[in-house]
Amino acid sequence: MNYELKKPLILISNDDGYEAKGIRSLVDMVKHLGDVVVCAPEGPRSGYSRAFSATTPLLLTKREAYDVDLPGGEHSTVEIWSCNGTPVDCVKMALDQIVTRRPDIVLGGINHGDNGSVNSHYSGTMGVVLEGCMKYIPSVAYSLCDHHADADFEPMRPYVERYTRQVLNDGLPKGVCLNINFPLLLAAGDDTRPTAGTDSGICHGLKEYKGVKVCRMAQGSWLHEISKCRHPREYDYYWMVGHYRNDEPDAEDTDNWALQHGYVAITPTTFDVTAYEFLKQKEAWEL
Amino acid sequence: MNYELKKPLILISNDDGYEAKGIRSLVDMVKHLGDVVVCAPEGPRSGYSRAFSATTPLLLTKREAYDVDLPGGEHSTVEIWSCNGTPVDCVKMALDQIVTRRPDIVLGGINHGDNGSVNSHYSGTMGVVLEGCMKYIPSVAYSLCDHHADADFEPMRPYVERYTRQVLNDGLPKGVCLNINFPLLLAAGDDTRPTAGTDSGICHGLKEYKGVKVCRMAQGSWLHEISKCRHPREYDYYWMVGHYRNDEPDAEDTDNWALQHGYVAITPTTFDVTAYEFLKQKEAWEL
Repeated sequence: MNYELKKPLILISNDDGYEAKGIRSLVDMVKHLGDVVVCAPEGPRSGYSRAFSATTPLLLTKREAYDVDLPGGEHSTVEIWSCNGTPVDCVKMALDQIVTRRPDIVLGGINHGDNGSVNSHYSGTMGVVLEGCMKYIPSVAYSLCDHHADADFEPMRPYVERYTRQVLNDGLPKGVCLNINFPLLLAAGDDTRPTAGTDSGICHGLKEYKGVKVCRMAQGSWLHEISKCRHPREYDYYWMVGHYRNDEPDAEDTDNWALQHGYVAITPTTFDVTAYEFLKQKEAWEL
Repeated sequence: MNYELKKPLILISNDDGYEAKGIRSLVDMVKHLGDVVVCAPEGPRSGYSRAFSATTPLLLTKREAYDVDLPGGEHSTVEIWSCNGTPVDCVKMALDQIVTRRPDIVLGGINHGDNGSVNSHYSGTMGVVLEGCMKYIPSVAYSLCDHHADADFEPMRPYVERYTRQVLNDGLPKGVCLNINFPLLLAAGDDTRPTAGTDSGICHGLKEYKGVKVCRMAQGSWLHEISKCRHPREYDYYWMVGHYRNDEPDAEDTDNWALQHGYVAITPTTFDVTAYEFLKQKEAWEL
């Protein structure tokens, strides 16, 4: 494809699939900041983490482009590709097979659901962003604490635009990406969207975000994760379910705390998983 | 199942499948240290990272137990279960559905292939161990720089026994697990096992490990990851391949350096992916 060389190139993927409302909303929020290319899974890939397809042949399908209106009456299209693989596969495929220059930023999302705390590990959206980060491209994940297919992403718009623009302008340190989660603000008494297992940042009675907190990842646990069922043919099968527990609910410097209190939570995230504190104490461990 | 309560409980999984030589070797190396239970994928799951099956029903199958000989002429069996899901699914299923007490340790491996540097992210074996770690159970991954199905794991035995015993005795700090990689030692001139894409620790001419290094994770990159093929029915499909480049080959404190120089590489690893250095500088970033 041919790009106008002066514009930044924005690569977008997700784990909810190329047709999800979240990724369409994200494209709409950043379309005026550069040339946008989407390469996303064919369908839902929640929980795919940083998995890639080591043994499955991959297919790439060009989908109908999005028509987008730009400021000033300009009109453009956004290339949309889907891949039958994982979110990480989508990034690798896009970089190798679709774009003809290096993206200036990789965006993941907008995810339908919270990617705070340990969900950062399981999340395919974070898989997208860590893949970008491991390729030394500034990368940002956006997630909303609302799993519903018709979630309203609109309140996020000024923040998404601002942070995408800022990272395009300033970059990020090598090895650091951003995991940005947004609480779901509901009118007082609105119980039509009950708290789902993963969504720890649903705030009733707030009309707008209280502010922004740059946080660390909370420690939390998934409990009662397996639900056993009986098949009509008389054997057991299991669904992965569970509910999330914040293991440090009073820690005000965490993403979980920020979300629970109505703040946008920005968690700077690294792919360097070395436990440096332990490394310093290594003499004591006699390994 | 009934356990003798005084013995430690050792839960083992991997990403190469319950029938792989690596997991059988691992069971054999630690069988005398406690009660051993295996729950591993039905088949190969390399590259599955920390993925779990959010939308697929899971099946658990009890396989033929391993007969094992213990020191002193004692004889025992090891329970073997397989699951149709991911390595992480196996750990979650085992904890919820198989064991009747909390394991004292979770072991992953022995992996057929290197899990150093960024492979730590993609690895299903590291998925096993991070899942144990996220459940606050001391967890250790063992990997050998040899992808072959018939790899010789025997030189690892005294190290695997020692580190498993040590972690059973001393535990690990909360949130820290160990990623232990072993180089492949080949006789000088033995080129029957050429360097594969991922295996950066193949040492020719060394007869035994030079020693042990406690390291950080190297920064490295996968290059040329996609191989395009033409299907007989006239469409393109793609295989995920690539080769690995160490981006800091002179850094002597890294896992890649240790492996390349014949050392066993112990990388203490955390599931806390917060970028703390960036967090400290957050004022400068005006996020």
